[in-house]
Amino acid sequence: METETKAVGDGKVVEMSKGGRKIRRCELVLRFLGLALTLVAAIILGVDKETKVVPITITSTLPPIDVPVTAKWHHMSAFVYFVVANAIACTHAALSLILCLVSKNGQKGMKLVIIFLDLMMVALLFSGNGAAAAIGVIGYNGNSHVRWNKVCNVFTKFCNHVAVSIVLSLLGSLSFLLVILLIALSLPKHK
Amino acid sequence: METETKAVGDGKVVEMSKGGRKIRRCELVLRFLGLALTLVAAIILGVDKETKVVPITITSTLPPIDVPVTAKWHHMSAFVYFVVANAIACTHAALSLILCLVSKNGQKGMKLVIIFLDLMMVALLFSGNGAAAAIGVIGYNGNSHVRWNKVCNVFTKFCNHVAVSIVLSLLGSLSFLLVILLIALSLPKHK
Repeated sequence: METETKAVGDGKVVEMSKGGRKIRRCELVLRFLGLALTLVAAIILGVDKETKVVPITITSTLPPIDVPVTAKWHHMSAFVYFVVANAIACTHAALSLILCLVSKNGQKGMKLVIIFLDLMMVALLFSGNGAAAAIGVIGYNGNSHVRWNKVCNVFTKFCNHVAVSIVLSLLGSLSFLLVILLIALSLPKHK
Repeated sequence: METETKAVGDGKVVEMSKGGRKIRRCELVLRFLGLALTLVAAIILGVDKETKVVPITITSTLPPIDVPVTAKWHHMSAFVYFVVANAIACTHAALSLILCLVSKNGQKGMKLVIIFLDLMMVALLFSGNGAAAAIGVIGYNGNSHVRWNKVCNVFTKFCNHVAVSIVLSLLGSLSFLLVILLIALSLPKHK
């Protein structure tokens, strides 16, 4: 494999293959994508809010009263978990991006800590996506068995923003997944 | 590092370090744990069923009628996803366990495919856990903002089984996570 010899600050010579540099570049791009996507996903759901006037029946003998009702992300624990998970993943992506840029190639201890944290982020993000999507499905369709009515026929804009946010977060999670796979590509032949 | 020289079928000699054998043994144990935990989690939720007599009001002028209502896992799409995710992860664990037992140590291509599938399982299981947990939380506490009533005060046994199933699946997911970390431990020093 074609290699490039590069002298670093302390006089040590580090050899880096063309393939290695390509993987490193891909890793940086994927980490940046993970950062951007989770940040946008957290912001979209974090600022999501919709107020609608809903007729509410207090007693059956009186006509329903029109009451303004606001849908907010922190009304549902699954959405709170989703926003927190994306914020944590976004912070991790920013820090790991900086570490990848400033650290020398091949610091195994550091690399292992980053892979461990990447894996935690994959777990955190996918559980957040699953939680938000499960609530989203009930919001769109309702569930007659437990008599949970759909709410997305009223709060259409809010629900659409939730859906966009979940898709972006899912793409962000895939970025973290690809980073781990990229690192796995450089596995040794024998354990 | 202390190594052991071992002759294999085609006359090739494979060297395996003590650390390598330890990692391989841990991997097999973790894969078996993943298999057992996801299997039990899928079975517990898959056979979960509870029938309760619930008073249902048809019109406000008539007294409520007692109707037997059955809670089943396939009434909720999140639980269906959870069971399917655990069944897929269980199948993967069984196949990867067999592959690990019969394959020679150090087949990089095979190893990469297994890591890729392990990562898919982590994503699948954590999203399933998140989805089931989100519905479980609403089932236990209800949500006044969207007027989704809690159901676990009626279907207590069903909900407890769901909770046990989620905990087992979470432990199974952690097994898959640890397998990936174990493989990452054998990363080369330079990319």
